[in-house]
Amino acid sequence: MPQETPYTGIFPIVPTPFHDDGSLDLDGQKRVLDCMIDQDVDGLCILANYSEQFLLSDAERETLQTLCMEHVAGRVPVIATCSHFSTQVAAARCKRAQEQGAAMVMMMPPYHGALLKAGDQGVFEHFAALSQAIDIPIMIQDAPLSGTNLSVPLLGRIAKELGNVSYFKIEMPGTAGKLRALIEAAGDHIDGPFDGEEGITLMADLDAGATGTMTSGLACEQIRPIVMDFLAGDRAKAEAQYNRMLPLINFENRQCGLRACKTVMQAGGVIKSDAVRHPLEPLPAPTREALLTMANDLDLIAARWGK
Amino acid sequence: MPQETPYTGIFPIVPTPFHDDGSLDLDGQKRVLDCMIDQDVDGLCILANYSEQFLLSDAERETLQTLCMEHVAGRVPVIATCSHFSTQVAAARCKRAQEQGAAMVMMMPPYHGALLKAGDQGVFEHFAALSQAIDIPIMIQDAPLSGTNLSVPLLGRIAKELGNVSYFKIEMPGTAGKLRALIEAAGDHIDGPFDGEEGITLMADLDAGATGTMTSGLACEQIRPIVMDFLAGDRAKAEAQYNRMLPLINFENRQCGLRACKTVMQAGGVIKSDAVRHPLEPLPAPTREALLTMANDLDLIAARWGK
Repeated sequence: MPQETPYTGIFPIVPTPFHDDGSLDLDGQKRVLDCMIDQDVDGLCILANYSEQFLLSDAERETLQTLCMEHVAGRVPVIATCSHFSTQVAAARCKRAQEQGAAMVMMMPPYHGALLKAGDQGVFEHFAALSQAIDIPIMIQDAPLSGTNLSVPLLGRIAKELGNVSYFKIEMPGTAGKLRALIEAAGDHIDGPFDGEEGITLMADLDAGATGTMTSGLACEQIRPIVMDFLAGDRAKAEAQYNRMLPLINFENRQCGLRACKTVMQAGGVIKSDAVRHPLEPLPAPTREALLTMANDLDLIAARWGK
Repeated sequence: MPQETPYTGIFPIVPTPFHDDGSLDLDGQKRVLDCMIDQDVDGLCILANYSEQFLLSDAERETLQTLCMEHVAGRVPVIATCSHFSTQVAAARCKRAQEQGAAMVMMMPPYHGALLKAGDQGVFEHFAALSQAIDIPIMIQDAPLSGTNLSVPLLGRIAKELGNVSYFKIEMPGTAGKLRALIEAAGDHIDGPFDGEEGITLMADLDAGATGTMTSGLACEQIRPIVMDFLAGDRAKAEAQYNRMLPLINFENRQCGLRACKTVMQAGGVIKSDAVRHPLEPLPAPTREALLTMANDLDLIAARWGK
């Protein structure tokens, strides 16, 4: 049964599998979901940046969201990413996600390209409009890609004044410090201070007050215990497991990015191709080989699920 | 009758009118097209950044492109902007534009957000795939929004090696110098060195070899003669007219951006609302007033077309 709110634990990003020709692999998408649920996740997040959302058309987004919601079918809560520069388009996406049964939406602040972004008031108004548009929780994603500085006072104001904005995924340089400051500023209004970025700073973020993490679908069954043991009070056990996982997480975060999960899932028989869409480039062969060695040494579920 | 290629002259960007509630004003869109054609343009460019393309859904893009192609109906050539970070999605957009009768497509290099872009080889492959996908000319738009450095050697290589890439719209710091260097590097393979950015550097760009400009739809009937007189050899006449227009162009470029054309067209009875989509902000009242004073003093067609 899906856990009750507030959500804690691990909510990994679902990758989008393509065939070698770049078309959507819809059967593979179902297998990805099943494999991730078998990794004992607390929930899933679809159509995020690690899902290559920026390489999809709107029609493909709709196809994937429909498929994911129907195939997960309530087994775990699903967070749908609905970011768009237009407040109006973002609100329409949020409504559609809610209608399809999403448990939450994840939203970047409005941005386009290297230069277009909103000021503090524009960001506030953007999230205010989204909070009005739906009844499910909103998670703000604070990541460098937006080019937007979301200050702690601004995020705190949003948490306090906007009823549905209650989760914050921080994945910025200095995430732990920002989480700590945000919890101090508005902790009573925050149901989930989360981190992301493959869990690369997870231990420091848990120490700072994070209650959840958004990794990839690479190794959830071995990263989830870090969070759960920490939340249960066993910091030493959590730290030992984090230290054990850090070489893989570091290799994923710094050498592979979103290609890691697909490559391991392909080797593990979950999907047929680890293709990413151009202009993203495939993993160089030596990187791929090193990643698969680490995945096999750790006996990851993703590396053997479909074999 | 539409002019023959290579195209020269003025190819302004068509703004996208919204109702006050942010929905598309399709009747207004037709009036905008008619007003711009009455400004004696050589062609039109749709769905560009000045058209707020980054605030539209894919479904709205399709609606607008269909409407524009059908309503222009061959009266002037239409350039359709089809940029997308995904090479595959961009190619599909280009094919659709060609199918609907676009005379040309305008393409930024691939980019997403503040950080995602391609290297030189990725940019080359992106345009190579687009050049393969269609038979009509491709214009590369080189603007700061992409966050991508398109070097003159790279653009020259693209012009020489990719058959359909034959127009270049440069609107970067140092546009005149870049146009001159690009023409020197690959002029034989370039049908149209154009500038953009409201025509703010038009005189220097013509001196550097530009044969066309992509302004807004604010004052085409008074900016086009600058290009045409220059191309006919009368530089002094062109310069006098440029100097006459520069205060308006400067005010548009530095104080208003894409809001200028809509505001003047609303005052001129072309469209009912000059709304832009959030998080873009409306023009402050004093800026609006100053703009309309200048537009009326110049007796712009856009400022009186629907009255």
